[in-house]
Amino acid sequence: MKKEKVILAYSGGLDTSVILKWLSEKGFEVIAFVANVGQRDDFDAIKEKALKTGAKKVYVEDLRKEFVTDFIFPALMGNAIYEGRYLLGTSLARPLIAKKQVEIAEKEGAQYVAHGATGKGNDQVRFELNYAALNPHLKIISPWKDPEFLEKFKGRTDLINYAKEMGIPITVSEEKPYSEDENLMHISHEAGKLEDPMYIPEEHIFNWTVSPKDAPDEETLLEILFKNGIPTKVVNLDDGTEKTDPLELFEYLNEVGAKNGVGRVDMIENRFIGIKSRGVYETPGATILWIAHRDLEGIAMDKEVLHLRDMLTPKFSELIYNGFWFSPEIDFLLSAFKKAQEAVDGKVVVSIYKGNVTPVSRYSPTSLYDQALSSMDVEGGFNAIDSKGFINIHALRLKAHNLVLKGKDPFAWRKEIGNVYKTLGKGI
Amino acid sequence: MKKEKVILAYSGGLDTSVILKWLSEKGFEVIAFVANVGQRDDFDAIKEKALKTGAKKVYVEDLRKEFVTDFIFPALMGNAIYEGRYLLGTSLARPLIAKKQVEIAEKEGAQYVAHGATGKGNDQVRFELNYAALNPHLKIISPWKDPEFLEKFKGRTDLINYAKEMGIPITVSEEKPYSEDENLMHISHEAGKLEDPMYIPEEHIFNWTVSPKDAPDEETLLEILFKNGIPTKVVNLDDGTEKTDPLELFEYLNEVGAKNGVGRVDMIENRFIGIKSRGVYETPGATILWIAHRDLEGIAMDKEVLHLRDMLTPKFSELIYNGFWFSPEIDFLLSAFKKAQEAVDGKVVVSIYKGNVTPVSRYSPTSLYDQALSSMDVEGGFNAIDSKGFINIHALRLKAHNLVLKGKDPFAWRKEIGNVYKTLGKGI
Amino acid sequence: MKKEKVILAYSGGLDTSVILKWLSEKGFEVIAFVANVGQRDDFDAIKEKALKTGAKKVYVEDLRKEFVTDFIFPALMGNAIYEGRYLLGTSLARPLIAKKQVEIAEKEGAQYVAHGATGKGNDQVRFELNYAALNPHLKIISPWKDPEFLEKFKGRTDLINYAKEMGIPITVSEEKPYSEDENLMHISHEAGKLEDPMYIPEEHIFNWTVSPKDAPDEETLLEILFKNGIPTKVVNLDDGTEKTDPLELFEYLNEVGAKNGVGRVDMIENRFIGIKSRGVYETPGATILWIAHRDLEGIAMDKEVLHLRDMLTPKFSELIYNGFWFSPEIDFLLSAFKKAQEAVDGKVVVSIYKGNVTPVSRYSPTSLYDQALSSMDVEGGFNAIDSKGFINIHALRLKAHNLVLKGKDPFAWRKEIGNVYKTLGKGI
Amino acid sequence: MKKEKVILAYSGGLDTSVILKWLSEKGFEVIAFVANVGQRDDFDAIKEKALKTGAKKVYVEDLRKEFVTDFIFPALMGNAIYEGRYLLGTSLARPLIAKKQVEIAEKEGAQYVAHGATGKGNDQVRFELNYAALNPHLKIISPWKDPEFLEKFKGRTDLINYAKEMGIPITVSEEKPYSEDENLMHISHEAGKLEDPMYIPEEHIFNWTVSPKDAPDEETLLEILFKNGIPTKVVNLDDGTEKTDPLELFEYLNEVGAKNGVGRVDMIENRFIGIKSRGVYETPGATILWIAHRDLEGIAMDKEVLHLRDMLTPKFSELIYNGFWFSPEIDFLLSAFKKAQEAVDGKVVVSIYKGNVTPVSRYSPTSLYDQALSSMDVEGGFNAIDSKGFINIHALRLKAHNLVLKGKDPFAWRKEIGNVYKTLGKGI
Repeated sequence: MKKEKVILAYSGGLDTSVILKWLSEKGFEVIAFVANVGQRDDFDAIKEKALKTGAKKVYVEDLRKEFVTDFIFPALMGNAIYEGRYLLGTSLARPLIAKKQVEIAEKEGAQYVAHGATGKGNDQVRFELNYAALNPHLKIISPWKDPEFLEKFKGRTDLINYAKEMGIPITVSEEKPYSEDENLMHISHEAGKLEDPMYIPEEHIFNWTVSPKDAPDEETLLEILFKNGIPTKVVNLDDGTEKTDPLELFEYLNEVGAKNGVGRVDMIENRFIGIKSRGVYETPGATILWIAHRDLEGIAMDKEVLHLRDMLTPKFSELIYNGFWFSPEIDFLLSAFKKAQEAVDGKVVVSIYKGNVTPVSRYSPTSLYDQALSSMDVEGGFNAIDSKGFINIHALRLKAHNLVLKGKDPFAWRKEIGNVYKTLGKGI
Repeated sequence: MKKEKVILAYSGGLDTSVILKWLSEKGFEVIAFVANVGQRDDFDAIKEKALKTGAKKVYVEDLRKEFVTDFIFPALMGNAIYEGRYLLGTSLARPLIAKKQVEIAEKEGAQYVAHGATGKGNDQVRFELNYAALNPHLKIISPWKDPEFLEKFKGRTDLINYAKEMGIPITVSEEKPYSEDENLMHISHEAGKLEDPMYIPEEHIFNWTVSPKDAPDEETLLEILFKNGIPTKVVNLDDGTEKTDPLELFEYLNEVGAKNGVGRVDMIENRFIGIKSRGVYETPGATILWIAHRDLEGIAMDKEVLHLRDMLTPKFSELIYNGFWFSPEIDFLLSAFKKAQEAVDGKVVVSIYKGNVTPVSRYSPTSLYDQALSSMDVEGGFNAIDSKGFINIHALRLKAHNLVLKGKDPFAWRKEIGNVYKTLGKGI
Repeated sequence: MKKEKVILAYSGGLDTSVILKWLSEKGFEVIAFVANVGQRDDFDAIKEKALKTGAKKVYVEDLRKEFVTDFIFPALMGNAIYEGRYLLGTSLARPLIAKKQVEIAEKEGAQYVAHGATGKGNDQVRFELNYAALNPHLKIISPWKDPEFLEKFKGRTDLINYAKEMGIPITVSEEKPYSEDENLMHISHEAGKLEDPMYIPEEHIFNWTVSPKDAPDEETLLEILFKNGIPTKVVNLDDGTEKTDPLELFEYLNEVGAKNGVGRVDMIENRFIGIKSRGVYETPGATILWIAHRDLEGIAMDKEVLHLRDMLTPKFSELIYNGFWFSPEIDFLLSAFKKAQEAVDGKVVVSIYKGNVTPVSRYSPTSLYDQALSSMDVEGGFNAIDSKGFINIHALRLKAHNLVLKGKDPFAWRKEIGNVYKTLGKGI
Repeated sequence: MKKEKVILAYSGGLDTSVILKWLSEKGFEVIAFVANVGQRDDFDAIKEKALKTGAKKVYVEDLRKEFVTDFIFPALMGNAIYEGRYLLGTSLARPLIAKKQVEIAEKEGAQYVAHGATGKGNDQVRFELNYAALNPHLKIISPWKDPEFLEKFKGRTDLINYAKEMGIPITVSEEKPYSEDENLMHISHEAGKLEDPMYIPEEHIFNWTVSPKDAPDEETLLEILFKNGIPTKVVNLDDGTEKTDPLELFEYLNEVGAKNGVGRVDMIENRFIGIKSRGVYETPGATILWIAHRDLEGIAMDKEVLHLRDMLTPKFSELIYNGFWFSPEIDFLLSAFKKAQEAVDGKVVVSIYKGNVTPVSRYSPTSLYDQALSSMDVEGGFNAIDSKGFINIHALRLKAHNLVLKGKDPFAWRKEIGNVYKTLGKGI
C-alpha cells in the first residue's frame, strides 16, 4: 500500500527530529521542509540530519526576501505592534512558512502537513489557521495535541531518550533552559527562569544585541528613505554605506541596531489562547524602521487618516499575533492602509545611540507641512480670526452641556479617582 | 462708571505683560492670575511685575499637586499619548489653569477672562473650550484674535516698543528664538529654527534633560508601585530613596529622568486647527511613569479590556490634545478607564540608563498571570487538546472563505504592495 | 458511596428530559433547575415531569423581573443589537439562567452543572462561559459534546426511542420541525425549512405576533418615559393605560407590539463558532423600547458621546451574543454607557401601526436642544460669522491635501467602483 | 475694468435669486449653475428666471446618473446612515453639486464660487469643504456669512421686499413654513412648526410618500440583485417589471417605496456645528436598498469583516454628514469597504408593505453559508467536540478574572444601574 505523504515543518531541533522519526515510524512518507527565514543555522547540516532521521526528501527554501517584502513591510505600513511593544517577529514568519509548506504539499500531492509547535502556545494556532486559509483540504498533524504522542512523550526526558534510542543526534543548544525563536526580524526568548515575571533578565540571555551599556560611545546617524510607506534606501551618514535591496537594507539595519543595543523588549503579553506569558525580544532592525516610519507619517500623512489608522492598529496587530495573516479581515485593513501610505514618501534621519533610536530630521515631498501653508498664503493664508469662529462653534456643545446640567457639577465624579490615596495604609 | 473686571492668565512674559497693560488702558480692571503649574519661575517677581504693569490685584496659585493627582494621573490611566509620542504636558495643564481662572472670575464677580495664547496654536482652543465648559456665561478676551490688537501689534517689535514705552521690563529670556512652555510635566520647544523639519536640534535647545550622551554610566533601578493604576510610591533601589506623596513622587521622577537623559521627543504633530507643527519635548518623569504603568497593565489587566482600551487611547489622547478635558466625552471614556484600572495594582522595576527606560521586573497581587493558571490546575488545568477544538473552530471561517472563492487566490492583490520597487528609478 | 450532585438546566422538553434520565442512570443525583424567564410553559407540569423522570429535587425560579431590570435594560442602555438586527433575546437570558444555576449549585454543594444545548450552537458557549465567570470551580457536563452521549444518541429518533423506553412522555410540540427559544423578550425560530435562506417564512411559523397584514387598522400612540436611559413608565395615549413596574411595563409593550405585528426579523447571522445560520425572531416589546430609547438619545445625549458610543455598540452586542455578559470587558463598556445615560431622561411618543414603530414626538428636561441655544442667546447666541472661521479651519487640511498632490486627482481611483457595470453581461 | 466671474449654485428659489441679483449689483459677472440632482423642478423656467434676474450665462446640468453611481452607491457600500437613521440624502448631493460647480469655474476661468446656504446649517460646510478639497484656489462667497449681506437682509421680509423691488418673481412654494431639500434620494423637511420636538408631523408635511395608512393592502415583492455590493437589477416579482440601468432602477425603487409609505424618518440630529435640529425625511428607494444590501451582507460577508466594518460605519456616516466626502479619510475607509464588498454578490427578496421593508429570502453565489459547510464535510465537517476546546480556551481568561478577585463579586457594581427605580418619586 502506498504511504501517505506528510510535509513536516522541520527545524533540525530535538522536537521536530523526534516528530519526523515518529511520523516515519507510524508509516508516513515524511518530506521535511526547512524554511530559511533568516535564522542563523547550518542548513546543509539540518538537511543531512533530516535525511538521516528518516525524511524521504528535504526542501530547504530561502524565504528571506519574501519575508521582508511581503510580510515585514506590509506590517510596517500599519505600524503593527502587539500590546504596544512586540513587533510580531514570530507572528509574521509563521504564515510565510505555512504558505510555502502548503505549496510544497500541493506540488508533492501530499494530503498532510505537520508542525512541532506546542499545544499551549500561539504558533500552533498560526500554523494551522494559515494552512486552513490557504488550503482547507489539507489534513493537519499536530503531535503536541495528539493524545497518542502526548502519552508517549510526557516531557523533555522522553524526547531525549527516544532520540538516543533512534540514533538522532542531540545538539548542545538543546540543553538551553530558554525557548527561543529566531528569524530575520528578531530572536525571542521565553520559558525557563523568564517565567518568573520578577526575574530580571541576565545579560547572557540576549544573543543578538549588545547591552546598551556595551554599545559604542558614538551615535550613528542613518537616513532612511520611504516610498508609499515602504523602505527603499538606507544611508549611513557617517560612513556613506548605502543599501537599496530590501533584504540587504533590512540586514544592515539589524547589524547597526544590534551593535548599538537597539530593540530589546521585556514584557508580559496575552497569548491568543488566553494565557499571559512573558516574552523577551531582540528586534534591532525592525525597531529602527518602525520608529522612522512613524516619524515620516507625522510629516506626510493627513491628520484624520493618521488618527483613524491609529485606532485600527491595535486590531491589525492582534490579528497578526493571533495568526490571521491570510484572512479577509487583514485584507480589509490592509486595503485602507495601502491607500493611506500613498502619501508616505520621504526620508527620516534617526540617531542610533546606546539603545535609543531618535528621529532628528525628516523631509517629505508630499508633505502637508510646508508647501500647504505657503501655498495657502497665496490665497490669503491662515487667518487668526478664523480660529475664533472655529472655537466658538466647538464651544457651543460644551456650553449646552453645562447649561443643561446647571446646579450640578458634571465633572465632580472625577474626584473619586483620587480616592485611592485615602484608602492607602502606611505601608501602602 | 464702574470698570469691568477681567481675569487675565498672566505669565510674566512679554506678551501677557503687554496684554495686561493694553486691557488696563482700554479701561478694564485687570486681575492677574499666575498659575504655578511647576514652571521654574520667580513668582514673587512676577506678582510684582503684574502690579507694576497695572494689575489691580494678583492671584498666585500653587496648582502643582492638583495637576499631578487630577490631571496627570487620570491621563496616565488611559495611557494618554498624542500621535504615539507626545505625552500632553501642555494640553493637560491648560484645563487646570482655565478651571482656576474660572473660579477666580466667579469669586471676583468678573464677567471677563483673558489669555495670551496666539491665534494659530492649540492653547487658545484649550483655554477657551475649558472656559466654555466650566462657565458658559463668561466672556472671553483673546487679544491675538482681536482685530484691534492685531492691528496695533503686528510683530514682536511692536510688542517690545510698546513695553518700552509703557515701562514694562523685558527679560533676557524673551529674546530666545524658541517658544517654550514649561510646567511640572514637561518643557516644550517650538518655532524658530525648529520650524525647519530637517533641522537637527542642537544641544543648547534642551534645558531640562542632559543628553543621553552626557548621562551617568551607571543604570538606576526604580521600583514604582501602583494602586488602581495610580502611582503610590517610588523606591530607588540603589540608594533607598522613597517617595509617596504624589507631588514629591512626580518631582523625584523628573529629577531622576532628567539626570539620565530620559523623555526627549522630536516630532511633527498635527494641531487641532489642521496645521502640522514641529514640537520638541522633554518629559522625564511622565515618560518613566507611562512606561512603567503600561508594563504593569501587561501583567494585571484582562486581555480583552486591554485591547478595547488600546483602541480608545488615540481618541482619548486626541480629545485631551484638542482641549476637551472638561467634556462629556472624556467623562464617557474615563468612566470605562477607571473601571479597567481597578485591577491595575502592583509594582514594576524599571531600569533607567542614558535615555532608556526599560521595565525589567514586575509583580501584581491581582495578576492573572500565576495564580490563575495554578489555580486552574486544581480544576484540571490547561489542556492541550482543547487547543485543537479552539483552532478548528477558528479555522472554519477561513476555510469557508477559501472554498467560496475557489479558483481565485483571495490574497493575490497584496502583491501590488511590493510594486513600489518596480517603479523606482536608479537613484530612487 | 455518596452520589455526585449535578444541577441540570431543565426545560421539560425532550432533550433535557433524556439528559436528566441519562445523568441519573450514570449515577448522578440530578437536581433539575427550571428557569422561568417568561416562556409560556406550565411550570407545575414541568416540575412533575422532572420528578417523574428521575430528578431528586426541582427548583422552579421566577427570574422574569431580574431579566428585565438587570439584563434587558442594561443592554438597552448600549442599544445592543447584533449585526444590526437581532436584539439578543436568547443571548441575554442565558447568563441569567447560568447565574441562578451557579447559585443553586453553591447552595446545594453540587460540583457539577449541566445543560442541554447542542454542540454547534451559541447557547453552549453562553452557558459555559457564564458558569466559568461566576464559579470557575464548577465542573460542566455538556452531553451534546460528550462522546459517550453522542455515540448513544445519534439523532432525534434515538432520543424518542430512549424516551419511550424510559417512560418519558413526549409532547406534541416536540414534533415541530423548527427549533424555538422563548422568553420574555422574544421567541426565536430556526432550523428545519428555515435552513434554506431562500425559503420565505410561512405565516404559521410565527406565534407571538400577528402579521402586519392582520394588525389593527388604527395606530396606537404610546408615551414612554425614561430616567438615566431606563424605561420607567409607559402610557397608552389612546386608552390611558399606565405601567410603571418594570416587568408589567415590558409585558405590556410585548402585548401592544405583538397585536400590531411589531418586531419580526428574518436574517442570516454569524454564530460565535463561525457558522452562518438563519434566525427568525419575534421581539415586539424590546423593539418598541429600542426605537424609543434611541430617539430620546437624539435629543438628550451629547453628540460626541453619542458618536463614540455608536462606535462601541457593535462590540458590546457581539460580546453579549458570544456569551461574555459576565466579563471584565462588558464591565468596561457598561461603565462608560452608564455614565452616558445619566443625561438620557425624558419621554418619547411612538406610533405603533402594522409593524411600524415611529417616534413622532419627544421631550427631555436635560435636552441640549432648546435650552442650550436659547440660553446662549443671552451670551450673544449663535453667530453665523463664526461658521466662516469654523469652515476655513476645517478646510485647511483638505486644501493642503489637494495642493500637495497637485497634478494628480486624488479621488480618481473611486471610478473603479462603478466598473462593476462594465463587467456585467446582458443577463447580469 | 473686466468684471470678476462668479459661479453661483442657483436653485431658482427666493434666496439664490436675491443673491444672484445682489452679486450682480455688486459688479460680478454671475454665471448661474443649476444642478439637476433629481428635484422635481421646471429647469427651463429656472434657467429663464436666472437670466432675467441678471445671470450672464446659465448651466443646467443633469447630474442624476452620476449621483446614483458615484455617490449613493458608494455610500451604500458602507451602509452609511447618520446617527442610526438618516440616509444622508442631502449630504451626498452637496459634494456632487460642488464638484460640478468647481469644474464650471475652471472651465469659465472664474475665481469665485458662491452658494446660498445659511450660516447655521450643515450645507454651507459641505459646499465649502468640497470646494476647498477640489480646488483650493477658488474664492468662496457665502452671503449668509457676509456681514454686509446680513446687514441688508435681516429676515425673510427683507428678501421679499428686495425681490419685489428688483422684479424677481416669487413663487407660492416660497411661502411654505418648512424648509425643504429635494433630490433623487430624498426630500427633507425642517424648521417651522417642526422645530418643536414634541410637535407630531401632520400628514400634509409629507409630499413624496403616502402614509403607511394609505398604502395598498397588498404587499409587493421585489428581488434586488447586487454585484460587489452594488445594485445591478431590480425585479418586481408581482408584475415582472425589470430595471437594470442604475438611474432607472433607483427611480423605480423610489416609486414603489413612495407608493407603499416607505422611508419616513422623524429625528433629532446633531449638526456638525454642534446644534441639535429636527429633521423629517422621506427616502423611499434608498431605504429599500439599504435594508436589502445589509441583508445580503449577512449571507455573503465574512463575520470578522462585517464586524470591523460595522464599527467604522458611524465614522464613515459622520464624515459624509459633515461634508468630508472628498477627503483622504473617506478614501481610507472606502478602500477597505470596496475590498469588503468584493464578496457581496447575490440577490435579496424584500417584501414591501405599508411602510415595512422586510427581507424574506436571499441567495449568494459567494455565500459562506451552504457551500462552506458542505465542503467542509468532506474534510470531516463540524465536530461538536471541537466546541469543547473552543469554549474551554475562551473560559480560561474569565476563570482567571474570577479567581484573582476571589472574595469580591466583580459584577456587584452593576446593581447601581437599577437604582434609578429607588430614586423615582410617585409622579416619576
